[in-house]
Amino acid sequence: MTDNFFEKTLAAREISQIPGMLEFDIPVHGDNRGWFKENFQKEKMMPLGFPESFFAEEKLQNNVSFSRKNVLRGLHAEPWDKYISVADGGSVLGAWVDLREGENFGHVYQTVIDASKGIFVPRGVANGFQVLSDTVSYSYLVNDYWALELKPKYAFVNYADPTLGIKWEDVENAEVSEADKNHPLLKDVKALKADEL
Amino acid sequence: MTDNFFEKTLAAREISQIPGMLEFDIPVHGDNRGWFKENFQKEKMMPLGFPESFFAEEKLQNNVSFSRKNVLRGLHAEPWDKYISVADGGSVLGAWVDLREGENFGHVYQTVIDASKGIFVPRGVANGFQVLSDTVSYSYLVNDYWALELKPKYAFVNYADPTLGIKWEDVENAEVSEADKNHPLLKDVKALKADEL
Ligand SMILES: Cc1cn([C@H]2C[C@H](O)[C@@H](COP(=O)(O)OP(=O)(O)O[C@H]3O[C@@H](C)[C@H](O)[C@@H](O)[C@H]3O)O2)c(=O)[nH]c1=O
Ligand SMILES: Cc1cn([C@H]2C[C@H](O)[C@@H](COP(=O)(O)OP(=O)(O)O[C@H]3O[C@@H](C)[C@H](O)[C@@H](O)[C@H]3O)O2)c(=O)[nH]c1=O
Repeated sequence: MTDNFFEKTLAAREISQIPGMLEFDIPVHGDNRGWFKENFQKEKMMPLGFPESFFAEEKLQNNVSFSRKNVLRGLHAEPWDKYISVADGGSVLGAWVDLREGENFGHVYQTVIDASKGIFVPRGVANGFQVLSDTVSYSYLVNDYWALELKPKYAFVNYADPTLGIKWEDVENAEVSEADKNHPLLKDVKALKADEL
Repeated sequence: MTDNFFEKTLAAREISQIPGMLEFDIPVHGDNRGWFKENFQKEKMMPLGFPESFFAEEKLQNNVSFSRKNVLRGLHAEPWDKYISVADGGSVLGAWVDLREGENFGHVYQTVIDASKGIFVPRGVANGFQVLSDTVSYSYLVNDYWALELKPKYAFVNYADPTLGIKWEDVENAEVSEADKNHPLLKDVKALKADEL
């Protein structure tokens, strides 16, 4: 948990490094049983900037990954938007790299996420995280459908590329997938054009 | 975890006791990092019976509650539909009571839920659960917005009503909210009319 876990006021901040990215403070209500949060609430979050375009095609998928400490997943930029969150008492170091063509290509943002934060990641921005807690449940909403056959068309950048400057913890010993080991360095990534997103 | 946790085939079953209720088998993919699941995938689940009406009003909220062992939450029948799931390695005993007017009023269904199951609960059916694991992350989608002021209009039934026949574990020592202690017995619940839902 971050210092200030409970009873934040719902709020959104733009991430200046990566246009279109938003970081939400999510109110978490604690009691004798544990806690409760409205992790996503369309009516309250749209006026704060959550893009209406997320819902334009009426597609919806909710993914959950469960990972052990030091697992690192990413960095993946599939052609859909993501609303990222932590669904239990754990935390992750989140990292994002803009892979969209233009002056922000290669820009990086990183922050620790626990259940009291939500992150909106626009399509074209590579998403990844490293687990800081013993385990973590990582839950996110996306607005288009993954398919194994389409994976060659998705964009990736290697988490271990030192030019990104991401401050992973003990990255040599991170537990990763074979696929994630083999993604290109930033200098070899073809910037994503608007019509590919 | 239930016996058969990984790599189920996505499937849906109707719950005969409570019309409109659906139980989904959710494929969970395990690997060196932990596991991954498409917890909700509209395009795959609608053909299996997930109702299109869930999306009719274009409202969406994702709630997460985190609870310790033996916590019991419920039984609550707010005027919206719910798609219920477990988002971590934990499990709960889920229980549902039909509070809609008609021949199924008072009908009960109960089952253990872990991350490899998803439950669609139509509005008018009271929802509750008891935590079986050390902790659990309970995540659900709803299609209308809660408000504290409206709480007096929501319908509830007392989890401890013995006429329900729910096989809670050690219910006397369950950790509950003050509100949940004071909900009416089934015999005192006013059945919900279709126009109240
Ligand atoms: C992403 C995805 C994977 N799968 C399957 C394929 C594999 O069997 C298993 C794990 O897939 P992987 O791609 O290795 O999972 P992963 O956890 O490495 O991938 C995820 O990483 C996050 C950092 C990104 O933000 C996500 O968008 C996604 O790319 O789940 C689906 O069935 N549906 C999906 O939507
Ligand atoms: C349900 C809800 C609660 N809250 C707040 C009110 C309290 O401060 C705190 C906890 O609320 P409670 O009603 O005590 O939570 P709870 O966990 O007992 O309530 C839930 O129980 C499940 C079994 C039902 O299926 C859900 O629909 C819901 O009723 O969260 C919201 O902000 N938004 C919401 O949508």
